[in-house]
Amino acid sequence: MTYQDLYTQIKKKKSFLCIGLDTDPSRIPGHLKRLEDPVYEFNKRIIDATSDLCIAYKPNLAFYEALGPEGLLSLQKTIEYIPADIFTIADAKRGDIGNTSELYAKAYFEKFSFDAITVNPYMGNDSVVPFLQFKGKWVILLALTSNEGSMDFQLLKAPGKELYKQVILKSKDWAGPDQLMYVVGATQAEFLREIRVLIPDHFLLIPGIGAQGGDLESVVKNGINHSVGLIVNSSRSIIYASKEEGFERAVRQKSQEIKKEMEDLMDKYL
Amino acid sequence: MTYQDLYTQIKKKKSFLCIGLDTDPSRIPGHLKRLEDPVYEFNKRIIDATSDLCIAYKPNLAFYEALGPEGLLSLQKTIEYIPADIFTIADAKRGDIGNTSELYAKAYFEKFSFDAITVNPYMGNDSVVPFLQFKGKWVILLALTSNEGSMDFQLLKAPGKELYKQVILKSKDWAGPDQLMYVVGATQAEFLREIRVLIPDHFLLIPGIGAQGGDLESVVKNGINHSVGLIVNSSRSIIYASKEEGFERAVRQKSQEIKKEMEDLMDKYL
Repeated sequence: MTYQDLYTQIKKKKSFLCIGLDTDPSRIPGHLKRLEDPVYEFNKRIIDATSDLCIAYKPNLAFYEALGPEGLLSLQKTIEYIPADIFTIADAKRGDIGNTSELYAKAYFEKFSFDAITVNPYMGNDSVVPFLQFKGKWVILLALTSNEGSMDFQLLKAPGKELYKQVILKSKDWAGPDQLMYVVGATQAEFLREIRVLIPDHFLLIPGIGAQGGDLESVVKNGINHSVGLIVNSSRSIIYASKEEGFERAVRQKSQEIKKEMEDLMDKYL
Repeated sequence: MTYQDLYTQIKKKKSFLCIGLDTDPSRIPGHLKRLEDPVYEFNKRIIDATSDLCIAYKPNLAFYEALGPEGLLSLQKTIEYIPADIFTIADAKRGDIGNTSELYAKAYFEKFSFDAITVNPYMGNDSVVPFLQFKGKWVILLALTSNEGSMDFQLLKAPGKELYKQVILKSKDWAGPDQLMYVVGATQAEFLREIRVLIPDHFLLIPGIGAQGGDLESVVKNGINHSVGLIVNSSRSIIYASKEEGFERAVRQKSQEIKKEMEDLMDKYL
């Protein structure tokens, strides 16, 4: 998927919502637990209920790995079920020495056909570049994450500038905004203005609204660019909107609320 | 496995060798490819040929994920096959926000019964601590990795001290040397002396001898402590020592050479 494809989809749907498919079998509605592959069945219903309202789905790999090999089978079926025009992100936070990063890239870009993967920058250039060799695929590099621990190292002055800025400044030479995005937590909205000075054109993947407490309007006000440039993720507050039979209605309603807010904010700030 | 168990095994075997089970199906001897699960069959033979010479096995997860769900089945069988007194390390380099790190911990400590997992420190305290909640299990935190990209961020002064030192100094309050180790590449032996000033007691996992070019004597001279405190990994130079039928002999011989060098170095420096 190209930068332009993404922007076109955002304009068409008037949404920059990404739904996190962080599916925990213990939180799935009871009536689905009797089916053969409850994780896949749940995801399928979430996708059916929301695919016209969001532009991306982002399964966090931990939820599937925690289920062992069967979990990866559920993931594979889920990815195949997502409509081809919707952006898919493997939230894997991988990164390893070169030949090993290439294997991760093959796993997620080829075996699972994801459009993008989140990558941890700690190991530097040769741990990230192997992911960038895949045409039409995206790397989403962790910059400033939404958790409290982001203060431990990402905000250290390293030197002069914070580490997360060093990550952005160095990595933006490794690929252009057509292949590289950055993760910036919604809880870090006050940093978005400074980040936009460094990377005016890049897309940012913004987790942390909803359950984690980030505020959507602050994110948009400080982070929007000419192509919107934001993919805002919500997981728990959407997919666990109800545990009852007919949960799909609650899921759709919650997604619609967020989508409507996004539409209004695009009108206001774009 | 406890700190003392590890040291006891090292003394008994006169070895601190870890063998990296980075099994690439395209590099497996031809006669194994006809079997039902070539990756597992290869690993089994490596383990049979080396389990009295090494103290740990370290599969890098990327090699198994690249094969899809079947790869994780091969991994599961491999881990079950490793004798219980040998330390097992999931080289996964994971790390995510708290509730997600906990899922990774469950996956590798409970589903797969690994003794240890490598963790990436970029996301800070609350991404690492969930792994430390599992009794008798170990976290091996990336500090200074063996690849060229380690210079990009790990060696930045952040501020005053290099980032990898900030990682060590901050994280050593999160758990003691009985639960926490650090990755330091063999290619970074000149830094080991300074690292030992900060953490005299911790074990270090040292990748990068053999194919990556690190020198074992420099590692031992600069990094050994009262309990040896080193787990030195070799992958490719051992497991791909031969592609022929009877490759097990070449694998064993190469392991014996390294083990003998380790024994001599323990005599010299301990």
